[in-house]
Amino acid sequence: MAFWKKFFKNINMFNQDKNSINIKKEYLAEDLILIKHLENQGNHNDIYISTGKNINLYELEQLCDSVGWVRRPLKKVKLAIDHSFVTICVFYKNNKSKKLIGFARATSDTVFNATIWDVVIHPNFQGKGLGKALMDQIVIQLRYSDISTITLFADPHVVSFYRRIGFITDPDGIKGMFWYPR
Amino acid sequence: MAFWKKFFKNINMFNQDKNSINIKKEYLAEDLILIKHLENQGNHNDIYISTGKNINLYELEQLCDSVGWVRRPLKKVKLAIDHSFVTICVFYKNNKSKKLIGFARATSDTVFNATIWDVVIHPNFQGKGLGKALMDQIVIQLRYSDISTITLFADPHVVSFYRRIGFITDPDGIKGMFWYPR
Ligand SMILES: CC(C)(COP(=O)(O)OP(=O)(O)OC[C@H]1O[C@@H](n2cnc3c(N)ncnc32)[C@H](O)[C@@H]1OP(=O)(O)O)[C@@H](O)C(=O)NCCC(=O)NCCS
Ligand SMILES: CC(C)(COP(=O)(O)OP(=O)(O)OC[C@H]1O[C@@H](n2cnc3c(N)ncnc32)[C@H](O)[C@@H]1OP(=O)(O)O)[C@@H](O)C(=O)NCCC(=O)NCCS
Repeated sequence: MAFWKKFFKNINMFNQDKNSINIKKEYLAEDLILIKHLENQGNHNDIYISTGKNINLYELEQLCDSVGWVRRPLKKVKLAIDHSFVTICVFYKNNKSKKLIGFARATSDTVFNATIWDVVIHPNFQGKGLGKALMDQIVIQLRYSDISTITLFADPHVVSFYRRIGFITDPDGIKGMFWYPR
Repeated sequence: MAFWKKFFKNINMFNQDKNSINIKKEYLAEDLILIKHLENQGNHNDIYISTGKNINLYELEQLCDSVGWVRRPLKKVKLAIDHSFVTICVFYKNNKSKKLIGFARATSDTVFNATIWDVVIHPNFQGKGLGKALMDQIVIQLRYSDISTITLFADPHVVSFYRRIGFITDPDGIKGMFWYPR
């Protein structure tokens, strides 16, 4: 979390001053949750998390481009989002602009099992605790629905990232498997 | 497939005689697909696969009991089935009775990814090629929807069963992970 201390002079989580409360109200209507409200010499810099599905697909495509993921047809991306049980977006907003900087989603049977896919934080915002906030939020949402088996498939370079969130590999020897045409 | 040869005198896949065609028609209305039609001295013994979701939950509970799985509230099982993208049932039917002897389901975003859960064949019918038929069918259904990432989590004792279906473990080092409270 060193970033916040370096980047901004005043760190105020859920700052209770008049402005931040207004901002919070404004965004709650859009299903946004303020996770960090930061002020730097009069500039507002906020990070929001949203569970809403009204996602700008072009912004999402740019976000996926930024980490080098293969492009997917937007029509299919829309369908995948519609059929995901939970989607989480992370937004950055300052006085001038609002930008999608993080995303994750989970498929689920809504009661027993869920699988998390497409976890991403924009490179400019990586290493600042936002990936953890995103993952914590998706786990909270799934646990809120009483889902006990929360799973994912981790690329080798991010296994230790997920370990820090509380995920473990191959518990009791259970192996993740993928189908490939024989 | 040795079972079929041992257990029945005449093995006829999609037997084209009058009786079997009648049986096929009868069941197609219920969304059942005849995968094996067998005759033994005038007795009809058939194995059907169904993709329908009109599943008898008590029969499914008995099937899960038969392999020692922990019981789950039927209300939740119903919700999980409703929110699964594909469910496959295997039925055994002779002149006297019809019985649910196999089950599998998959959650999915309907376009990119799917995860298969709750794969089971009744112990009396294991080792006879039905688990493979069940898995082949669920893969066919998912591939029909153009889903490219078909995944599952395998208990250690069934990893080699899934390998024979065409699943592989940890491709390119991708690890299956489960969330546990820290
Ligand atoms: C993986 C990713 C989402 C992490 O997001 P992030 O915002 O950089 O992560 P955070 O800053 O919240 O890191 C949380 C913790 O994990 C650690 N961490 C972050 N990325 C890590 C990595 N790749 N490997 C190991 N640890 C990592 C951090 O050091 C931090 O540890 P700490 O709590 O001890 O300080 C992000 O790097 C990303 O989008 N990568 C590209 C896309 C990708 O690979 N997605 C995963 C596909 S399976
Ligand atoms: C796993 C299960 C679905 C397999 O069904 P089945 O009808 O017995 O399997 P099949 O007869 O179609 O077997 C297909 C192939 O896999 C092999 N196989 C079957 N069970 C196996 C096992 N447990 N380990 C290794 N190989 C196995 C068979 O020998 C056969 O090989 P072949 O094609 O070379 O002849 C069944 O044993 C079962 O329901 N087990 C209990 C529940 C369970 O553990 N489910 C999986 C949870 S992850």
